Amino acid sequence: MLGTMQDEQLSLATLLKYAADFQGDRTVSTWTGDGVRTQTFRELGSDAARLANALRGLGIGEGDRVATFMWNNNEHMIAYIAVPAMGAVLHPLNVRLFPEQLVYIANHAEDHVVIVDASLLSHFSELLPKLKTVRHVIVANGDAAKLTAPAGVQVHAWRDVLSEQYDSYAFPVLDERSAAGMCYTSGTTGEPKGVVYTHRSNWLHSMQLVAPSGFGFTAGDTILAIVPLFHANAWGIPYAALMSGTSLLLPDCFRQPEPLLAMMAATKPTFAAAVPTVWSGVLTALEANPQDISHLRTAVVGGAALAPAMMHVFEEKYGVRLLHVWGMTETSPLGTAAHPPVGTAKEEAWSYRYTQGRFPAAVQARLTAYDGTAVPNDGVSLGELEVRGPWVTGAYYSPGESLVDPEKFRDGWLRTGDVGTISPNGFLSIADRSKDVIKSGGEWISSVNLENAVMAHPAVVEAAVIAVPDEKWDERPLVAVVAAENTCVTPVDLRNHLVTDFAKWQLPEHWAFVDEVPKTSVGKFDKKRLRDMYAAGELTVATLA
Amino acid sequence: MLGTMQDEQLSLATLLKYAADFQGDRTVSTWTGDGVRTQTFRELGSDAARLANALRGLGIGEGDRVATFMWNNNEHMIAYIAVPAMGAVLHPLNVRLFPEQLVYIANHAEDHVVIVDASLLSHFSELLPKLKTVRHVIVANGDAAKLTAPAGVQVHAWRDVLSEQYDSYAFPVLDERSAAGMCYTSGTTGEPKGVVYTHRSNWLHSMQLVAPSGFGFTAGDTILAIVPLFHANAWGIPYAALMSGTSLLLPDCFRQPEPLLAMMAATKPTFAAAVPTVWSGVLTALEANPQDISHLRTAVVGGAALAPAMMHVFEEKYGVRLLHVWGMTETSPLGTAAHPPVGTAKEEAWSYRYTQGRFPAAVQARLTAYDGTAVPNDGVSLGELEVRGPWVTGAYYSPGESLVDPEKFRDGWLRTGDVGTISPNGFLSIADRSKDVIKSGGEWISSVNLENAVMAHPAVVEAAVIAVPDEKWDERPLVAVVAAENTCVTPVDLRNHLVTDFAKWQLPEHWAFVDEVPKTSVGKFDKKRLRDMYAAGELTVATLA
Repeated sequence: MLGTMQDEQLSLATLLKYAADFQGDRTVSTWTGDGVRTQTFRELGSDAARLANALRGLGIGEGDRVATFMWNNNEHMIAYIAVPAMGAVLHPLNVRLFPEQLVYIANHAEDHVVIVDASLLSHFSELLPKLKTVRHVIVANGDAAKLTAPAGVQVHAWRDVLSEQYDSYAFPVLDERSAAGMCYTSGTTGEPKGVVYTHRSNWLHSMQLVAPSGFGFTAGDTILAIVPLFHANAWGIPYAALMSGTSLLLPDCFRQPEPLLAMMAATKPTFAAAVPTVWSGVLTALEANPQDISHLRTAVVGGAALAPAMMHVFEEKYGVRLLHVWGMTETSPLGTAAHPPVGTAKEEAWSYRYTQGRFPAAVQARLTAYDGTAVPNDGVSLGELEVRGPWVTGAYYSPGESLVDPEKFRDGWLRTGDVGTISPNGFLSIADRSKDVIKSGGEWISSVNLENAVMAHPAVVEAAVIAVPDEKWDERPLVAVVAAENTCVTPVDLRNHLVTDFAKWQLPEHWAFVDEVPKTSVGKFDKKRLRDMYAAGELTVATLA
Repeated sequence: MLGTMQDEQLSLATLLKYAADFQGDRTVSTWTGDGVRTQTFRELGSDAARLANALRGLGIGEGDRVATFMWNNNEHMIAYIAVPAMGAVLHPLNVRLFPEQLVYIANHAEDHVVIVDASLLSHFSELLPKLKTVRHVIVANGDAAKLTAPAGVQVHAWRDVLSEQYDSYAFPVLDERSAAGMCYTSGTTGEPKGVVYTHRSNWLHSMQLVAPSGFGFTAGDTILAIVPLFHANAWGIPYAALMSGTSLLLPDCFRQPEPLLAMMAATKPTFAAAVPTVWSGVLTALEANPQDISHLRTAVVGGAALAPAMMHVFEEKYGVRLLHVWGMTETSPLGTAAHPPVGTAKEEAWSYRYTQGRFPAAVQARLTAYDGTAVPNDGVSLGELEVRGPWVTGAYYSPGESLVDPEKFRDGWLRTGDVGTISPNGFLSIADRSKDVIKSGGEWISSVNLENAVMAHPAVVEAAVIAVPDEKWDERPLVAVVAAENTCVTPVDLRNHLVTDFAKWQLPEHWAFVDEVPKTSVGKFDKKRLRDMYAAGELTVATLA
């Protein structure tokens, strides 16, 4: 028996109309270095209609991909809503990727149009000759004439393109499972993989972002979206802002701590969202030049683990609550948010806030051991996190047919590659990546937990833990240690330092002192290189009894 | 082009599992008159599985209707989630309806099972012989043996039925458009009409209830649900509570102001939800015996217009924010909630809070004039409110085929029968019902606004306004006035009293002094009777020039 409810499709066009009509006085503002250029949601609605008309004039129809190569600014936001509303597919390109990755991604996605920020033209002009499906380039915020187009590609100026158009558009009624946007993961191994968000997934994800268990936006709030619009569906912020009447502040290319603080001083946002490295840079700048940032109700932090110490300094010294969230490109991205239950006593509340956070009702979660068996949600047992839900991807994009890679999916669940625990009341704590965790005698040992504990020793500068093969236990941990200058510390000292926090079988027996831990291009420990060094016999290893 | 997102169906079974697993320590409690009987969401999950097993044992399958005839208590809540989770359809019967209405509704819905509270057995036993499709009755909270069953009907005791069952159930995966629950409107004219909620509509509606623009529940909150579970989908509270980790307090049959206040003193809820008459009774009791109720973060008020004076007393004297909401059975029911934008200055904020509230993104709204033309959202122009959205009904239930009554639907929009204004930023103010509004010269005049203004005159006890036919203007207002004893007031006095607040064409020329305004069984002005009296020449009418 079916219900009598209207079969109203969740649609970003409806969201745009709502924002332009009933939240029309809310604003989108871009930092210019010494002020903001601002438009209302009402004006955003008109410009989105103009862009939709312009794109239709360039031959873009339903399902066609429109890429962006842009900073966080008003023009990017207009594209963010106009492209899916007209039934086309928004594909923000990550301007920080290597040229060969960008070329692969744009060709794989078959982008027809690219909207490019003029400040990125020199970078983009290298790529353009290699983009096989691009027929039109629209240059925003600068001189389109500076771009030399290859044969078969037309270059347009954003301002000219929009000024010729009507400010209304008959946005189509779409199946809510239609593609709205794409995002490619930039994995460290293999080719980038594409995820295709839908109108439905973006709408439901926005409702969760707006919920108190998500970010908790209310009409009248203002969010400084430092997280790039080209990264992981922009954490869902653009659509959640339109849904809730939250004004948007966009930093354009001014992403360094000092301009961000200047922007905050001028605009007083109630929310901000960024990765931990941004917050740590902001904190350093704040400590040098203190400034009142208590206008921030919440600073959302995701993308990597957040150090508890930083949470305490922000809250106790600057009156800003840091909210730890977890997610990934494949999950739209909001998976969890670390809100303690209201009424929790302060110290216990902190212990909740250090975790990655709690799952909402729509994101089902389970832990799986490396032999595929179920791991209990007891807050102690480690397992690989698997999730499912209406804003979790069920496949990777491939022209013609989606790919369900068995290494990434199991029985309809997404295998996240993150290893951690889930508490009985649904709080996730991530301990490691599945490729880094040590599989020892049927149990998992977190390399990250060991690293943090070793690095807490005063004589240690850095420590990286990798798995090395073991005949009896399958794998055992090896610790590569950089000792502080003029100190004298032994493997036995370090192992003794760990005994209070780790079970006996978790204690590493293999230790190697190194001059430095090899790093990736983005500064993370390069554990693959370390494993190669171990295999090649390049490490001097001491093994304790 | 479709997306790669999982085609995860929104399902109340998933919600039950989430609540029982990850919000398992939250509770449902029923007031006993001097305390509460409580179970955790975890225990609720076990009992829901037991009930599902029991119902399956009685032959209930997907799509079968299971009725309830219950107060707000734990057993009713178990049925609320177990019945839809197993794929059957929950049909709460309004225990306050007349027997002939209840018989019509239960037969129309083809209820197979009725779960009855023992305290309502004498009322129910009158109905039972006339219920054509009921085969099983389950009696909760008392002695099942007191019910004499007609031939073909089996009577069971709730406790016996559940105690024999397993505490787990393989809840089916359902199409999210499957029926989850039914509710009949008790219109003043015609037969009651059924609305059939779906898993999808209840899920999406719960997300909106949880949003800050709805009720704003957070994990750790506690809501006293005074609104009956048998009324208008229980305002969506049961499912929103499970979604957010909000504990539920249920008053059972103790719905009078004093026991409600005793319950609040004992349980300290952070939310409560009820119609204005309940709040006005609570206020009277509070004024007689003051008590601290500032534990209430928000008291939600809907179902009828809320007097501004009551909002001020609750907030200024008792520290409780009354939140005005609007909705109807056909809208699940949440349509609007009167949250001013944050940052609004206090006096302006009050003007927002007096309205019925703001529409959320998923509920599209428009005003239509009585000739079918569009009315602007200018905050002044009156029109009939029409709405659409994923939790708005698109038809009324009829066995075999749903009914789309053209008097209630227009081009896929629900005609609410409410006449009012919408401000440019989406706030709804209801002025009247469409059947009561006066259609004069192409414009609408609100009978309610005139009544309130006339009743504000010190010499007036009551005033009811009806439309009377007019050759030139189609209709004109007639005011039936009950004057205070020992006063001497004339139609001219009263019209002069109105001139500052109404345009000249809105001022009534027809006045009739009456001893009392006729009332309906629930105490509302009986305007149909008044119109009949006018037509029969039973009113003495003075007509001003």
